[in-house]
Amino acid sequence: MENHSTGATPVAVILGSKSDLETVKPCFDTLKRFGVPFEAHIMSAHRTPGAVSSFASSAKENGVRVIIAAAGKAAHLGGFIAAHTTLPVIGLPIKSSTLDGLDSLLSIVQMPSGIPVATVAIDGSANAALLAIEMLALSDNELADKLTADRKAMEEGVMKKDAELQSELCL
Amino acid sequence: MENHSTGATPVAVILGSKSDLETVKPCFDTLKRFGVPFEAHIMSAHRTPGAVSSFASSAKENGVRVIIAAAGKAAHLGGFIAAHTTLPVIGLPIKSSTLDGLDSLLSIVQMPSGIPVATVAIDGSANAALLAIEMLALSDNELADKLTADRKAMEEGVMKKDAELQSELCL
Amino acid sequence: MENHSTGATPVAVILGSKSDLETVKPCFDTLKRFGVPFEAHIMSAHRTPGAVSSFASSAKENGVRVIIAAAGKAAHLGGFIAAHTTLPVIGLPIKSSTLDGLDSLLSIVQMPSGIPVATVAIDGSANAALLAIEMLALSDNELADKLTADRKAMEEGVMKKDAELQSELCL
Amino acid sequence: MENHSTGATPVAVILGSKSDLETVKPCFDTLKRFGVPFEAHIMSAHRTPGAVSSFASSAKENGVRVIIAAAGKAAHLGGFIAAHTTLPVIGLPIKSSTLDGLDSLLSIVQMPSGIPVATVAIDGSANAALLAIEMLALSDNELADKLTADRKAMEEGVMKKDAELQSELCL
Amino acid sequence: MENHSTGATPVAVILGSKSDLETVKPCFDTLKRFGVPFEAHIMSAHRTPGAVSSFASSAKENGVRVIIAAAGKAAHLGGFIAAHTTLPVIGLPIKSSTLDGLDSLLSIVQMPSGIPVATVAIDGSANAALLAIEMLALSDNELADKLTADRKAMEEGVMKKDAELQSELCL
Amino acid sequence: MENHSTGATPVAVILGSKSDLETVKPCFDTLKRFGVPFEAHIMSAHRTPGAVSSFASSAKENGVRVIIAAAGKAAHLGGFIAAHTTLPVIGLPIKSSTLDGLDSLLSIVQMPSGIPVATVAIDGSANAALLAIEMLALSDNELADKLTADRKAMEEGVMKKDAELQSELCL
Amino acid sequence: MENHSTGATPVAVILGSKSDLETVKPCFDTLKRFGVPFEAHIMSAHRTPGAVSSFASSAKENGVRVIIAAAGKAAHLGGFIAAHTTLPVIGLPIKSSTLDGLDSLLSIVQMPSGIPVATVAIDGSANAALLAIEMLALSDNELADKLTADRKAMEEGVMKKDAELQSELCL
Amino acid sequence: MENHSTGATPVAVILGSKSDLETVKPCFDTLKRFGVPFEAHIMSAHRTPGAVSSFASSAKENGVRVIIAAAGKAAHLGGFIAAHTTLPVIGLPIKSSTLDGLDSLLSIVQMPSGIPVATVAIDGSANAALLAIEMLALSDNELADKLTADRKAMEEGVMKKDAELQSELCL
Repeated sequence: MENHSTGATPVAVILGSKSDLETVKPCFDTLKRFGVPFEAHIMSAHRTPGAVSSFASSAKENGVRVIIAAAGKAAHLGGFIAAHTTLPVIGLPIKSSTLDGLDSLLSIVQMPSGIPVATVAIDGSANAALLAIEMLALSDNELADKLTADRKAMEEGVMKKDAELQSELCL
Repeated sequence: MENHSTGATPVAVILGSKSDLETVKPCFDTLKRFGVPFEAHIMSAHRTPGAVSSFASSAKENGVRVIIAAAGKAAHLGGFIAAHTTLPVIGLPIKSSTLDGLDSLLSIVQMPSGIPVATVAIDGSANAALLAIEMLALSDNELADKLTADRKAMEEGVMKKDAELQSELCL
Repeated sequence: MENHSTGATPVAVILGSKSDLETVKPCFDTLKRFGVPFEAHIMSAHRTPGAVSSFASSAKENGVRVIIAAAGKAAHLGGFIAAHTTLPVIGLPIKSSTLDGLDSLLSIVQMPSGIPVATVAIDGSANAALLAIEMLALSDNELADKLTADRKAMEEGVMKKDAELQSELCL
Repeated sequence: MENHSTGATPVAVILGSKSDLETVKPCFDTLKRFGVPFEAHIMSAHRTPGAVSSFASSAKENGVRVIIAAAGKAAHLGGFIAAHTTLPVIGLPIKSSTLDGLDSLLSIVQMPSGIPVATVAIDGSANAALLAIEMLALSDNELADKLTADRKAMEEGVMKKDAELQSELCL
Repeated sequence: MENHSTGATPVAVILGSKSDLETVKPCFDTLKRFGVPFEAHIMSAHRTPGAVSSFASSAKENGVRVIIAAAGKAAHLGGFIAAHTTLPVIGLPIKSSTLDGLDSLLSIVQMPSGIPVATVAIDGSANAALLAIEMLALSDNELADKLTADRKAMEEGVMKKDAELQSELCL
Repeated sequence: MENHSTGATPVAVILGSKSDLETVKPCFDTLKRFGVPFEAHIMSAHRTPGAVSSFASSAKENGVRVIIAAAGKAAHLGGFIAAHTTLPVIGLPIKSSTLDGLDSLLSIVQMPSGIPVATVAIDGSANAALLAIEMLALSDNELADKLTADRKAMEEGVMKKDAELQSELCL
Repeated sequence: MENHSTGATPVAVILGSKSDLETVKPCFDTLKRFGVPFEAHIMSAHRTPGAVSSFASSAKENGVRVIIAAAGKAAHLGGFIAAHTTLPVIGLPIKSSTLDGLDSLLSIVQMPSGIPVATVAIDGSANAALLAIEMLALSDNELADKLTADRKAMEEGVMKKDAELQSELCL
Repeated sequence: MENHSTGATPVAVILGSKSDLETVKPCFDTLKRFGVPFEAHIMSAHRTPGAVSSFASSAKENGVRVIIAAAGKAAHLGGFIAAHTTLPVIGLPIKSSTLDGLDSLLSIVQMPSGIPVATVAIDGSANAALLAIEMLALSDNELADKLTADRKAMEEGVMKKDAELQSELCL
């Protein structure tokens, strides 16, 4: 397990609510699979704004390099964090009980000019992690090689499923 | 003209961008028409988060009683302010160049449980003012009487237009 | 239990249909938690318009100070009530079996100029109550203090969940 | 010109705002073309609710047979009228400055069970009139014949335009 | 049970698919409750266009006075029928497995100028029947009286539920 | 100019309204560019249903091989035609004055099982022609070669614009 | 069972993910019912782009005549294939876990000018097959006769269901 | 002007069409303002797929570090590029003539698991550049300092506009 209490973690995953934990799990799993240490926190743009701004303002000096912010409904978490740091912030829209995630998506992706949030698909938890890893890999050749290997494995996975389909179609 | 530099203004109108000024004008005009002093500021949840949290945290002790937040796109301003005060916050979604204001509306109205933002229609500038006035009128009988008179005037305005229509139809 | 038959209740919650009762329960619970007396009624803008206009027209003189209107689909209840009173009206859009609540939301929030309805999130039942309490707290210091304490408790709740997450991540 | 001050008019057209007049004009024109007397009023569900309920409650005894209600945004006019009469009510959604008429449409068509509003297309002004005429024609053979003739004329109009197209394509 | 094989039925309900039967049942029930004879058919604008045009073209001379067309997805049934008759056609959009009924609604309500379809809410089956009954009641006083009585019963139903709520709140 | 009065035209373009002519022009131009004879007609699913069903029922025996149907709003034309022929029908949704073409698109593409309509983009006029040509090219090698050449020309067009951009960026 | 390893299959069905298999099954079943040989592959525009472009570039010379591409979310598969061949490509949007298939539909149907994708309904699996068969039938009279027979069978199926309904209504 | 013909440019901006050039200009301007060399190309996922895959496959070895892909409608460009490289790809949805950019947004952001595209707002051209710069700044302290300074300048810009507003309000 990653040590998430020191600043040595290049990725920080912030969840707006503990109820987002299950959706975010593939993000954690992907980071672990690539051996990227991360810290994770539950912080709310609206319920603990002080904690969020304090975290975001000091993230860079604490060694964090990329921040993933997962939130639903009027999802301000990513923009709130991005307003307090120049580190890249990845926004992960969480589908909630109404509107099928459209509210989360628009609240995150439609950031006004000046403060970007790099948005991934609704509930696109693994992709949030992969995007963070791609950013880190810009200055980490080992990680870049892992990404290349991962793509190769995905490719083979699809080809294997195609082979299975061919067998099934022949029956 | 209202004095907006002291804390004696019960209504504060915060604009996320100077480009929202024209849309917000009916809000100012309505407050003036009711004789409600107000202050107005341009502050951005994303560009000047410190100013926003500082304003919102001290608004109550400075004598502000209701806050109107006008913003477009991923409009976090209202929620950001509401996170820092227990004063009622009215969210005014501004239509921007894409998505016809739906992004602004959902970013403001879909607030998660715990921190409400009282949302009015997209570009519903006058209604934002009227809602603030209704709140103030809960403890201001003179203002309540003005609201009643205003409704009466609106009613008469519609009836006058109906009378005009009758004349036109008879021609 | 609050006495809801006299005019001593500052908040009135109107439900457009008994089927909305379960969704509205967090609104009731929140009002009870803050000790705010309320009355609740099932009234329909379309099935009992006379009862609604009668209630709304006399609400102020009966001591009601804020009205919460919960309704779904073509949700006219909030606007209908607002048309008959200058008290602040909070609109609570209820998600129905089709369109995921978008119809309810737009029917409530897009009020034309002159008659505002303070709209909260789809199924945002607790926030409807909190918004009403914020309005009442403008002239009730004790209630204002409770709101501040409630925010503090929410903040601690999030921090506790974060602490739990830290424990889980360390396992 | 129809006499619209007596109860002898079988169709009443109610506009929520004078600004809807231009969009409603094809409705007037169609009624005139069929020789169907009508009255027209500007009344607002929110600004003059008393006038609307008074009108709707007495419409039937005043000889009105079908009511057309044109309104935009959170368009409650049709439902409001339908709640006060068992006459058929036709809802005409007017496109406003935001959301391209979707709010008007959903506010009108998504009526809850018990009180129908016969909804036509956004800005579908002529069709509102034609639908009213179809209803009246159920007990007016002369009108029914006019409808049949109108269809024939429309058919010929299309065929004439097709003939023009053939000429243009041959050039 | 109504006799639906002769032309003596004033209402015809056309279903685009047998799978719509359950959703349409409240329409049947409402017509039965009012004692309005009706016939019902499964006909498809796309699979049996000949049957539909044949039915629609002869409906009026067969004694049908109002047609209800229930269909989902790209729901052309109502418009197809309306194109072949000047009888009023009521369109009932059925929610299908994708898009939550929005496709059905727009396919039915957005009819181009000249051929109206009176559209009710998505899955608004009872209202389709009530709207047909309102049209028939224009020349049937007994039916009109039943509608008035039905409204009264609905009103009392809501008041009874409100009374139940008062009891529950007092516990 | 193509002779469009005989059955020798493999492509028929049907417009729901003469107002669609300008949007459909790139479709005509593309067919001309490829030297594919076509006929064009203005026919309305709702105003001239008889003409449409007559055309569609006899299209195949008249030598038509592919039909393009352009229509807006509740766009039933493509489905109506497809119901009367087993020839491939291409649906071209036309953007109308409200809802930005979404109504046209859904009315065309969401066809129920059994009767497909090959839908292209809203106002995607040239693509409707290209799709028809691709179908014809399945049994016409010369046309297939023209398609390949067209793709090559498109590719070169993009490369030329890129070259222009390089020049501009160097200034 | 069709032989899908040689180039003798006129239809190729490409699935973006093995999870789409169940939704695509009616497509397979329809092709089998018409006796149209087909091959099926799992290939991903994003995970195995090389396999897709290789397949698409050589499809025509391998004897494929029509390609069906089934994909969900940001569904690029159809456009990607169409970019590499002038064969007709049919896009089948698959509903995924969020946004109810709207993302898949728009990603497929809104192709820019020059490269069409013939789009069918969300999850409209059987229609994708029927559209392919209609294209093949342009130069295969036997297949055209089967299509005509299939339409006849569908028509009889609807009439049989209508007969069942008549029986049920008489009970 | 940046030299964009060598591999020494860390940012590559790819436009799907020359018509996107005006919208993308703020992206170019922002990169220039930060002194970040960039190359720009017009390449189409559908018209020049070979050029795109060739570019994307070799981008990393050519020294490109971040790729910005701007496209409209069924915007496959970003996903297409991302499928061929493990460099971070930023997707910039361009609003086109229909659907207000929603199609572009969903086509870009809803990428399936495995291949992320970092999406910014519709027409959010400057933010695309800023996001790229934030990624580069992870290993470029000078650039990081410029970002901090830029934020400071933005903050001062907002404060200056607020000061102007104060002056205007005092008049």
